[in-house]
Amino acid sequence: MSYELNKKIRELEPYEPISGTYKIRLDANECPENYPDFIKEEIKNAIDTIDFNRYPDPLAEKVVTAFADYYGINPKYVTAGNGSDELIFLVEAAFMEKGDRMLCVAPDFSMYKFYSSICEVECDTFIKSDDLSIDTDALIEKVNRDNIKLLLFSNPCNPTGQGMTDEDARRLVTSVNALVILDEAYMDFWDQSLINEVEKYSNLIIFRTASKAVGSAALRLGFAVANETISRAVKAVKSPYNVNTFSQVVGSIIYKNKDYLKNRQKTIVRNREKLYNDLLELSALSDDFKVYNSCANFVFVKTSFGKDLWNYLKDNSIVIRFMGDYIRISVGTEEENEELISCIKTYLSR
Amino acid sequence: MSYELNKKIRELEPYEPISGTYKIRLDANECPENYPDFIKEEIKNAIDTIDFNRYPDPLAEKVVTAFADYYGINPKYVTAGNGSDELIFLVEAAFMEKGDRMLCVAPDFSMYKFYSSICEVECDTFIKSDDLSIDTDALIEKVNRDNIKLLLFSNPCNPTGQGMTDEDARRLVTSVNALVILDEAYMDFWDQSLINEVEKYSNLIIFRTASKAVGSAALRLGFAVANETISRAVKAVKSPYNVNTFSQVVGSIIYKNKDYLKNRQKTIVRNREKLYNDLLELSALSDDFKVYNSCANFVFVKTSFGKDLWNYLKDNSIVIRFMGDYIRISVGTEEENEELISCIKTYLSR
Repeated sequence: MSYELNKKIRELEPYEPISGTYKIRLDANECPENYPDFIKEEIKNAIDTIDFNRYPDPLAEKVVTAFADYYGINPKYVTAGNGSDELIFLVEAAFMEKGDRMLCVAPDFSMYKFYSSICEVECDTFIKSDDLSIDTDALIEKVNRDNIKLLLFSNPCNPTGQGMTDEDARRLVTSVNALVILDEAYMDFWDQSLINEVEKYSNLIIFRTASKAVGSAALRLGFAVANETISRAVKAVKSPYNVNTFSQVVGSIIYKNKDYLKNRQKTIVRNREKLYNDLLELSALSDDFKVYNSCANFVFVKTSFGKDLWNYLKDNSIVIRFMGDYIRISVGTEEENEELISCIKTYLSR
Repeated sequence: MSYELNKKIRELEPYEPISGTYKIRLDANECPENYPDFIKEEIKNAIDTIDFNRYPDPLAEKVVTAFADYYGINPKYVTAGNGSDELIFLVEAAFMEKGDRMLCVAPDFSMYKFYSSICEVECDTFIKSDDLSIDTDALIEKVNRDNIKLLLFSNPCNPTGQGMTDEDARRLVTSVNALVILDEAYMDFWDQSLINEVEKYSNLIIFRTASKAVGSAALRLGFAVANETISRAVKAVKSPYNVNTFSQVVGSIIYKNKDYLKNRQKTIVRNREKLYNDLLELSALSDDFKVYNSCANFVFVKTSFGKDLWNYLKDNSIVIRFMGDYIRISVGTEEENEELISCIKTYLSR
């Protein structure tokens, strides 16, 4: 008897979260605040409605309806997932066949490519322009020329914060012979979504999440929005009970608090603008600190001393994301952002 | 622009749960009772500890530790999943390469084979003996002769309720050149687990679940138990945040209530014995009603009038599982089982 791991997984290492406790967490693009007490009370009361011994609703109807109401769309176009992560993996595994080619863009969210290697799908990469934008015409040409079956990217982009307009996205979707997935995880912070027009396209899936603007990263709630044919297939391939009952119940509570969510999102966008402007001002202190404007809840900065700055901030109990030539800073509360700015100012002034 | 679903998924239909409300649910092998108030209070209090805006612990350390303590094993051998469903799909996708062959047994849990088609893994079937047992020697021979890379079956078996002894399971694991997954979802009702010896084998994964004896189907908590090499690979290929925070928190509460769980499991086993004996007695009323003894929390019956009986019970607000030549009846509360037996008696006496 002998057993060896195959080459796909032999060298992989588990994702290790950053260890230690930090005062300010600006590394995961989370919402900076927990829910207020009136929502937590609703959640506690809902515990009594949960049959812990029973399986969840396979179609997650209540939370799907609450999500659809929130965005003004028809619930029949919506499938709930255990975070968008599950949906990414599922679509790459099920909607692609062995030997099919998919296309990602760079820079972008790294998990798209990670899953392609697990699913043995050939994954090509389209490199963004120097200003981190996507040349839509060049992308269309590549998809059609290289017989790409699936194009998947985040819009607005994580980690760059740049976005493709709805006009360009629409042109892209209608010009390629491929399934297009727009991961709109951060679209609550921008206004260029195609979520209201999925039924027009035979080849579009939009991913949304409750983890960012909606402030429920703990729940693992993601959604795929697509026409009925695609939605039926997603529902058919997913695990029957993929979303646990608690997340269904709490998600349906959260999405009904529309005014609260919208106001909080406005606050985050306002704080992002302040953070961006403050960082831009600080960039006068260094030739090596280029700040990009953002459509999301984080700001992207190009710098060659990112690792050193990351360490410096960590020593001051502030965590951001270091990404090689770049750093990515999530928008915190006003106070957190001020402390961050003060800390970076000290660092750059040394 | 044109897009068509591929042949793997084109014809699939979503899982449709049974519609309507029924007094007695004996169709999903769930635990018949919700948690008592003292546990629900603990759960409510835990809501205040949850940072809804933050991602879950990727390694789910608290619930993994509580699970490991419950079974007396080392937590380093344990990976938590979003139900065993996620783990089944994940292992088939990642531990198998396209074109590899896996082996299931029949009858068995249908999802094993379902995922193989999504993952484009060739899946062969080993047919059980007439008494629904597995001929271990014949199985070993087939795995080695046919170059099987993965053997996956439930022990005790869902839906038959039959089990393979630990002695046979050990012989199997040590005799095949394949990864063996024993899905021990129902092993809390029996005593032939290999969970305490995974570190001895290079090729064994055991799945456990909180959905059956532990009574938390709503939470979607499954566990893969394997040696360190395999566990590291499972942790590395899973989505980083696969288990939501609430299920981690509640799971860690539940597994700590060891006495409560063990007592409830004993009650279920006692009720199963009563249900089995009562059904056996009823089988005197029909030549076409063969009742199998069970190691799990359900009883399996061979009959050609299963569909008719299923309908009759449904009309009496009792739901069981109809499976072609068989029916599968989950153990309910004492009162539920009595009502079921009374109803079947009336049906068979007509």
